[in-house]
Amino acid sequence: MNKVEPRTLAGFMELLPKEQILFEQIKNTIETTYQQYGFLPIDTPIIELSEVLLAKAGGETEKQIYRFQKGDADISLRFDLTVPLAKYVAKNYGNLSFPFRRYQIGKVYRGEKTQKGRFREFYQCDIDIIGDGELSILNDAELPSIIYTIFKKLGFEDFTIRINNRKLLNGLFEEIGQKENSTEILRIIDKIEKIGKDEVNKELKELGLNTENIEKILAFIEIDGTNEEKIEKLEKLQIKNEQFLTGLEEIKQTLMYVELFGVPRKNYKLDLTIARGLDYYTGTVYETFLNEYRELGSVCSGGRYENLADYYTDKKLPGVGISIGLTRLFYKLNELQLIQANKKSISQILIIPMLENLDEPIKLATELRNLNIKTEIYLDDKKLKTKMKYADKLQIPYVIVIGEDEIKNGKLKIKNMQTGEEILTEFEAAQIAKSLDNMQ
Amino acid sequence: MNKVEPRTLAGFMELLPKEQILFEQIKNTIETTYQQYGFLPIDTPIIELSEVLLAKAGGETEKQIYRFQKGDADISLRFDLTVPLAKYVAKNYGNLSFPFRRYQIGKVYRGEKTQKGRFREFYQCDIDIIGDGELSILNDAELPSIIYTIFKKLGFEDFTIRINNRKLLNGLFEEIGQKENSTEILRIIDKIEKIGKDEVNKELKELGLNTENIEKILAFIEIDGTNEEKIEKLEKLQIKNEQFLTGLEEIKQTLMYVELFGVPRKNYKLDLTIARGLDYYTGTVYETFLNEYRELGSVCSGGRYENLADYYTDKKLPGVGISIGLTRLFYKLNELQLIQANKKSISQILIIPMLENLDEPIKLATELRNLNIKTEIYLDDKKLKTKMKYADKLQIPYVIVIGEDEIKNGKLKIKNMQTGEEILTEFEAAQIAKSLDNMQ
Repeated sequence: MNKVEPRTLAGFMELLPKEQILFEQIKNTIETTYQQYGFLPIDTPIIELSEVLLAKAGGETEKQIYRFQKGDADISLRFDLTVPLAKYVAKNYGNLSFPFRRYQIGKVYRGEKTQKGRFREFYQCDIDIIGDGELSILNDAELPSIIYTIFKKLGFEDFTIRINNRKLLNGLFEEIGQKENSTEILRIIDKIEKIGKDEVNKELKELGLNTENIEKILAFIEIDGTNEEKIEKLEKLQIKNEQFLTGLEEIKQTLMYVELFGVPRKNYKLDLTIARGLDYYTGTVYETFLNEYRELGSVCSGGRYENLADYYTDKKLPGVGISIGLTRLFYKLNELQLIQANKKSISQILIIPMLENLDEPIKLATELRNLNIKTEIYLDDKKLKTKMKYADKLQIPYVIVIGEDEIKNGKLKIKNMQTGEEILTEFEAAQIAKSLDNMQ
Repeated sequence: MNKVEPRTLAGFMELLPKEQILFEQIKNTIETTYQQYGFLPIDTPIIELSEVLLAKAGGETEKQIYRFQKGDADISLRFDLTVPLAKYVAKNYGNLSFPFRRYQIGKVYRGEKTQKGRFREFYQCDIDIIGDGELSILNDAELPSIIYTIFKKLGFEDFTIRINNRKLLNGLFEEIGQKENSTEILRIIDKIEKIGKDEVNKELKELGLNTENIEKILAFIEIDGTNEEKIEKLEKLQIKNEQFLTGLEEIKQTLMYVELFGVPRKNYKLDLTIARGLDYYTGTVYETFLNEYRELGSVCSGGRYENLADYYTDKKLPGVGISIGLTRLFYKLNELQLIQANKKSISQILIIPMLENLDEPIKLATELRNLNIKTEIYLDDKKLKTKMKYADKLQIPYVIVIGEDEIKNGKLKIKNMQTGEEILTEFEAAQIAKSLDNMQ
């Protein structure tokens, strides 16, 4: 028989079980945290009509789309979870309760150039809060606490959620008569950490700004100090522009409430350089950095948008959301060995029968499972050494070997595979469960 | 702005949040049960190279594939989780521990004709146990207990796991000199419940079988009685064919151990008519029926195969597995209202602030979340009626309204939204948690 080489496409992550257990653990941490804050699950198709999915898209994104024909339908794979959310809310508007708090965790597709750490299929983990017509700025203050809780649970301490409000910058641009250039200016400013001040200066000049205006912009984004000092300095700029003043009021409220929502002061700060270079965001924007690993880029980003679904509906649907690109994050954290598995195996215990008649070992496995202990029984006829090696390779924490003696004496030993410690106990599920509790 | 109509492709399930909560609950029941038996998670890409994915496929399946070109790659969406498993095991053979017990829950794609209850995108929930060279028949006896546990947990009592072994039928065909027709005969027999005995008789005749052989086949599959009686009758047939005798031994062992694995006698039976009409299975086969809803067809099926991945590797990899087609199952159960949600909302409690200063309500929400209570706080400025209606529509079980009085007095009321009962308690997270425990 001719063999086909079993291989996986480049840019598609496929993990060995041990890594997959860790991946699932992180995904689970994110999901349970989203639920802890009362977000509702939705699950939209991976395939949508191209007309629907690409209603707003264009440029770079569109080139990366997996788009094809099936029968007479022009269809595409989703490239994010935001457009499907917009479709979902517009379509189900009458059946949803607002503010609509939804989470979605799922795979999305972008045909990017394949390179290390870049994926064409990757998980996004999104939450958004969508208002019907309006949405209080307090929602913007709640999201950082969700970011905080997740990264805390993942074992990180030294991370900073950087918060800004785009109305400040946009207001400034209006004030200096550069409104029509604002998207372009934002795009340039956004790169300041990467390319440095001089390069930003140069690019702004190329865009046609005069020295006075460039200096105003740079002075603005270089405002430093504590959050309170920055706010004070912003107030002292005496800018009268209405959008600027709204942004100032919004960011003051956001920052004030973030702490009440449980984020320690050391884990968030006002960062006037964050703009998230997209037209999409109109108010609050977030980026999150692991301070010792800035090279990872932002590990959780998002922001406020004026209108979720204006290409589908006349309803005004303002929203605020955040997204974690889980596949890339996992890849990086795993590479740097920054995450530890709570448990390395699925099974808590492996029963190894070493006798002809498997009745008693099987009964015991069944009883342990009924006590909610994740139990595996080695059913194939192999040498003890092979069976022990299996437990070892899978890092199953406890092993019970059952031979004729154990049956005869009604006693057995639970072996802790890590310490080698053995505990003698009754051949009885409830007793074993109790011993396991004591051993942990 | 021109609007695009927000719509979802036919044949693609997209649920409202309330139904999605129920769907997730069922998915979760299946996943945690798979884990309880020590199966390891894997997650393979939805997209594979067509050459890899279609190495073995052909006929009906191939026509349904979502296959397309991206750049210079000929790629396809997976149509099941078995081929990706075969690829995965062949590819990672050296890094896996055998018997390899894996579960995978994920979406698969088949461009079937759209009709009610048929889906083009659907979840499969699979487990398989793969041996390296060989795999004990005891593994075949373990799987029914997993099926049993899942449907029990989902609230069903009256269901039957029907078990057979294809070697019995295949051996019989050899005995009567119809080996080359066996696949075709199996396909016909498999339909006996649907089309009746006469039609089966007719189709076998059309296939070229003589009356004597047809009668032997029908006599065989009409063997009735208890499992023990059926085994006895099979033994009395005095068939000397080797495959038949192996099958007889295997099914005896399987049935004997199924009960030790915890499946009550009323929930499984030997059914000699089950063949699962595919070339794929070579030994044990399973189908599961909800007896009051036979029209649903088998809700969990599977079986034993000789060789998982012979189109990728020379390694002999026998396996046994089962699969639940979750999307269709959910659709049917939901339509018949056969499943109840454990909880109808994600949030356990909604805090409704009715005052200017939200500091105290927000602090309380944060503290409740830190106590692992799924807490939501209504942050937008609306009338009390609107906020209560929100809790009601989302079926959040408990509500706390906080106004100036609650702040002043340091006391608040927890309202049970279903019974209307209210409990007065201290304005303090730990006290509220305690009261919630008492109210449940």
